[in-house]
Amino acid sequence: MIVAFQGERGAFSEEAARKLLGASIDVLPCRTFDEAFAAVANGTAACAVLPIENSLAGSVHRNYELLADHGLAIGGEVFLRISHALIGHRGAKLDEIRHVFSHPVALAQCQRFFADHPRLEATAAYDTAGSVKMVMDGDARHEAAIAGAHAAVLYDAEVIVDEIEDHKENYTRFLLLVPHDTPSPVEREGATRKTTVLFRTPNRPGSLFRALAAFALRDINLSKIESRPIEGRPWEYSFYVDLAGDVAEPNLARAVDHLREMCETVRILGSYPAG
Amino acid sequence: MIVAFQGERGAFSEEAARKLLGASIDVLPCRTFDEAFAAVANGTAACAVLPIENSLAGSVHRNYELLADHGLAIGGEVFLRISHALIGHRGAKLDEIRHVFSHPVALAQCQRFFADHPRLEATAAYDTAGSVKMVMDGDARHEAAIAGAHAAVLYDAEVIVDEIEDHKENYTRFLLLVPHDTPSPVEREGATRKTTVLFRTPNRPGSLFRALAAFALRDINLSKIESRPIEGRPWEYSFYVDLAGDVAEPNLARAVDHLREMCETVRILGSYPAG
Repeated sequence: MIVAFQGERGAFSEEAARKLLGASIDVLPCRTFDEAFAAVANGTAACAVLPIENSLAGSVHRNYELLADHGLAIGGEVFLRISHALIGHRGAKLDEIRHVFSHPVALAQCQRFFADHPRLEATAAYDTAGSVKMVMDGDARHEAAIAGAHAAVLYDAEVIVDEIEDHKENYTRFLLLVPHDTPSPVEREGATRKTTVLFRTPNRPGSLFRALAAFALRDINLSKIESRPIEGRPWEYSFYVDLAGDVAEPNLARAVDHLREMCETVRILGSYPAG
Repeated sequence: MIVAFQGERGAFSEEAARKLLGASIDVLPCRTFDEAFAAVANGTAACAVLPIENSLAGSVHRNYELLADHGLAIGGEVFLRISHALIGHRGAKLDEIRHVFSHPVALAQCQRFFADHPRLEATAAYDTAGSVKMVMDGDARHEAAIAGAHAAVLYDAEVIVDEIEDHKENYTRFLLLVPHDTPSPVEREGATRKTTVLFRTPNRPGSLFRALAAFALRDINLSKIESRPIEGRPWEYSFYVDLAGDVAEPNLARAVDHLREMCETVRILGSYPAG
């Protein structure tokens, strides 16, 4: 099975994909989220594993937009703790390092480390694991990268300092995306189910409240709500909600019927085993 | 009056500040949003004008976080239509241009222009107006920048192509931030009022629905809801809502009392004239 993800080999997304689908998968690294979605849509990959939310940085908006634009379904989810390591050439010592490359979000999550080591100069790059690759492709021993420790193994590099992130409670939620009407590879009996629904409310007072009533009146738990602007309709919004349960359950099915009465458009993005 | 904003002179934020506060203000350009907040907090500036939301790109999350972290109040808002121009050296022709610099969001909003002109190479820079300054500081006539047309006047540059943005319905909403308990410089009699409230719901089914009931049951219109993760409490959220009305009005004051019963924390970020 070929699994698409965004980033270079060794990215957190690849680690998430293996955690969810097993170590034996084949991976298709993609330059952008758009390319990963397209790989599933055109059949190059069986599925994709993409970040949707980080517990510190918030939602990955581009992926919410792509969920709306593509006909893919959510087939599963997985949570990964994000721990950053300073990675460099074999035998390199922290005292030698001057330049540190990583994705801007990773650099921002290690601010205390940079404050404690003012000699280090941080430079933004397009990827965490890609920064390790770039540093190892060169031979400047004063250059290092910030990425997950597993990236060091892949590029035959060395972890110079481990766990340099400011906050240990740093988790990313990844979604498994599969073609519409295709059984998810992670379906399993007896798992707790989760459902993601996309809807637009009419531009009227109380319309979001009435939409949420569909779930609240049936004691359906809402674990996330995300609002995104609608292109060409300034200051109107789409909402994405994550709900406890499966659309095949009568209670949730009735709630969705109720929601359709209240909203202009309603789309079930997927019912899947909770991570 | 000194007004802080993020970016170089000529930024859209400066244009927004002058639209809201008049042409005669003194401005304090800041490198980051954090510095602009700090300038108001420490009294270097009387107020700040900062973007909070774009009708295409969505919310400016860092500014929502800074609203929560600082004790500043929202004193007003202003909407600005964002139109991008290709700006270069005087007399430069489109055929001569090879490299185009701008903020990544501005580059993303002019994708059709780049598709129509495949010879142009786009390079991300930290700022729109700052890119114009950089191009004009050099003398390479094949370099240009994307920014608002007013930046051309400021840096004695020339608009080579006007209105190159993909979507004309491109608006940014800016907030005016003032020290807490300071009268807003844009207060005016008879204006429609708006109120922004920050609250955290308890981690229980239906808690957001119950919170929104405080407003829906009193026919108070909610024009925006934004959720942000809470640091150190993975998958719990703060909510920011924009409401029609002023907290001094009995109906809205009672709604806020009702909200306090339902929520762990409630903070009024400001009641101000609607833009």
